Amino acid sequence: MALIRALAVDIDGTLSDQDRVLCPAALQALRKLKVPVVLSTGNTHCFTRTVSVLLGTPRIFIAENGGVLSHSEHEMKVLADLAICEDAFKKLSAEFPLQRYNSYRYRFTDIALQRNFDVVAATRRAQELGLPVEIIDTTYAVHIKDRRVDKGTGLARIAEHMQIDLSQFAAIGDSDSDLPMFKLAGYRASVGNSSRLLKENSDYVAGAEYGNGFAEIIDYMISQKML
Amino acid sequence: MALIRALAVDIDGTLSDQDRVLCPAALQALRKLKVPVVLSTGNTHCFTRTVSVLLGTPRIFIAENGGVLSHSEHEMKVLADLAICEDAFKKLSAEFPLQRYNSYRYRFTDIALQRNFDVVAATRRAQELGLPVEIIDTTYAVHIKDRRVDKGTGLARIAEHMQIDLSQFAAIGDSDSDLPMFKLAGYRASVGNSSRLLKENSDYVAGAEYGNGFAEIIDYMISQKML
Repeated sequence: MALIRALAVDIDGTLSDQDRVLCPAALQALRKLKVPVVLSTGNTHCFTRTVSVLLGTPRIFIAENGGVLSHSEHEMKVLADLAICEDAFKKLSAEFPLQRYNSYRYRFTDIALQRNFDVVAATRRAQELGLPVEIIDTTYAVHIKDRRVDKGTGLARIAEHMQIDLSQFAAIGDSDSDLPMFKLAGYRASVGNSSRLLKENSDYVAGAEYGNGFAEIIDYMISQKML
Repeated sequence: MALIRALAVDIDGTLSDQDRVLCPAALQALRKLKVPVVLSTGNTHCFTRTVSVLLGTPRIFIAENGGVLSHSEHEMKVLADLAICEDAFKKLSAEFPLQRYNSYRYRFTDIALQRNFDVVAATRRAQELGLPVEIIDTTYAVHIKDRRVDKGTGLARIAEHMQIDLSQFAAIGDSDSDLPMFKLAGYRASVGNSSRLLKENSDYVAGAEYGNGFAEIIDYMISQKML
């Protein structure tokens, strides 16, 4: 196994517990790392930046499922189009009881919704209507997002920016929204609470769940001399 | 000593280390608490909300040094006037090399500046000019803020909202900006890295610094049956 030079790590369900609270074991595990950690999440730029401050990870991260990238403290890239999500939200609201999360003015490119509707049916309807969006359920929220971006397109750009080969990235996550970055990274590991599909696409699946699973993955990678 | 029913807790330097990274001992200490923790900080609403998610504390908090309060996930109160801070910033910029932090669109009521100028001289000049602002140095940033608000006015309103008497609050912090809430709370404790003035106004001063000091304070309060 080649040496890993950077990690791309999901937040909710991977570093946190099921209530989104940070797991102490995950915080400890992060402190063992000598390689940069790129946070990768469906959450907002502001949320992700704050997490990077508290965890001491670089201000290089993927927010809004690839719609927003941070290249440094002062350089944010908006790569997706909120207008097409707003249009889809309006059209789908006619048929589904969509309820937006109140993210004040913090969300630049996608729409976060409560998980109170039939996502499969809404996805089918969006396709029938030819809407250029993707609807994803992270188990924490449902997102309507521009289908041109995802955590994979985000990772590809971040890797280029950092001048680190994608094969030298390890991706760690828990949900289907992590799949696009799993397809690009050189090594893939999922926590014990992950979706079936993500586990099937993993090189290593932790026995432990949530942040304890993340800590197990880091220990395993260190034991295998990948880190 | 009366039983403490809630804590008001500063973030930077109190729960974090000097680089603003969350201290594992502080995270563990928070998990021992059965009473609500009201975060109280000079940082933005979005930053503070994210910290509350990661720490599992209520969405009731004091941001922007009392300029912004959160009463719940969906109820934010803006209590200070950014315009007077912008005016002071403009006037003081003529004489001091003020550099704003790039907080995108996240700051509602105060201005955060880099610590590259003479705060004492700038404060004197603001007084000479009769500007209705206060300039405070939290050691993490310098803030120009509306002088009608501070962490004390914030705590008074939050206590009322929570229907908990101020005397049943314990305040925990590290810098002079915590003094206004120390003046109101029934019990006051400061971490080892605190300002001289805050230590002088504390019922308990931790020997340990930063987040380890916070953990020491919680253990002490539990041992004294305050919590």
